[in-house]
Amino acid sequence: MQNKRLEDQVKFIVEIDRLKRIFRQNVVIGTTEQENDAEHSWHMAVMAILLSEYASEEINILRVLKMILIHDLVEIHAGDTFCYDEKGNIDKFEREQKSANQLFYLLPSDQAEEIMDLWHEFEAMHTPESQFAASLDRLQPLLLNYNTNGHTWKKPGVTSEKVLKRNSVLENPVPQLWELAKEIIEDSINKGYLKK
Amino acid sequence: MQNKRLEDQVKFIVEIDRLKRIFRQNVVIGTTEQENDAEHSWHMAVMAILLSEYASEEINILRVLKMILIHDLVEIHAGDTFCYDEKGNIDKFEREQKSANQLFYLLPSDQAEEIMDLWHEFEAMHTPESQFAASLDRLQPLLLNYNTNGHTWKKPGVTSEKVLKRNSVLENPVPQLWELAKEIIEDSINKGYLKK
Ligand SMILES: [Ca+2]
Repeated sequence: MQNKRLEDQVKFIVEIDRLKRIFRQNVVIGTTEQENDAEHSWHMAVMAILLSEYASEEINILRVLKMILIHDLVEIHAGDTFCYDEKGNIDKFEREQKSANQLFYLLPSDQAEEIMDLWHEFEAMHTPESQFAASLDRLQPLLLNYNTNGHTWKKPGVTSEKVLKRNSVLENPVPQLWELAKEIIEDSINKGYLKK
Repeated sequence: MQNKRLEDQVKFIVEIDRLKRIFRQNVVIGTTEQENDAEHSWHMAVMAILLSEYASEEINILRVLKMILIHDLVEIHAGDTFCYDEKGNIDKFEREQKSANQLFYLLPSDQAEEIMDLWHEFEAMHTPESQFAASLDRLQPLLLNYNTNGHTWKKPGVTSEKVLKRNSVLENPVPQLWELAKEIIEDSINKGYLKK
């Protein structure tokens, strides 16, 4: 290939195929197979398109989509950290930052920096876009767990209090979706999917 | 739930989880497992973000992303049709239109119509956005096949002539990517991944 820039872009595109084999804690509805990060990212992206009307502040939906599509790439090297694993979450950011440095700089530096900035914005949750994206990162697995009899919630250490706290991120960015999340959690307790 | 609009949106979001179990002809790199449509759509969307600079006409990248993220939803009912299966392709559009009617109208009608329009635009390939998206729909499996020793190309009826013709969609919308595709096809013939 004559074009070094395109060559680097293609290397990165081939490398991130690995996101399809980073497995999450929840399963795909109707199966016993774990969802992977590529599937999760796609699902969140479609949700962003459909649910943007619930954002309490004006959001740039293109930036939201970019953020969502790349938000889990760092797990290619760092792996998925279970959100209710307190120990695993202590050094999570450090492991993921290392992974980001290794992975994103396969790209031409202008694009590497764009993706690094988007990922940092997502992690910091200080902008309306990242708060909206983070809310969907909670709501998507909530919907999957609710539709798989609380699959992930049966793991050790998960309680309704922790699930509620984790989802409380939704309260300000998407108040109507926060009401929905609370209803789902309440109903999940009633149905025995989730320990009180 | 009090909110019928949100209820319908959630029904649709849960229903499209099924895209994660619509399998394609190619495999995920380094595995013998078929890629699914959700993974493919995610991969194409990231490619769109990274490769938009190669579009020969100005494109609205937000519309490209929306189109890519929903372009295979119709396969939830219609299934994946192998691109080199001439018989399967005869009634493909009719089967997919039926599937679209059934699936998209789970949504509130304004959103159903938006998605229907995006899908029709994608299928018609008359706009710069849909031509760019269609190009990535060719290039993404080309890259996967090249990196899996031509996995799909070993199926009956596939020849380099057909692969070249299918990828010629890239010629006008993304000339530099078309040059890349031709190089990859040439190299694949030399390496024995693809019959001359
Ligand atoms: Ca994550």
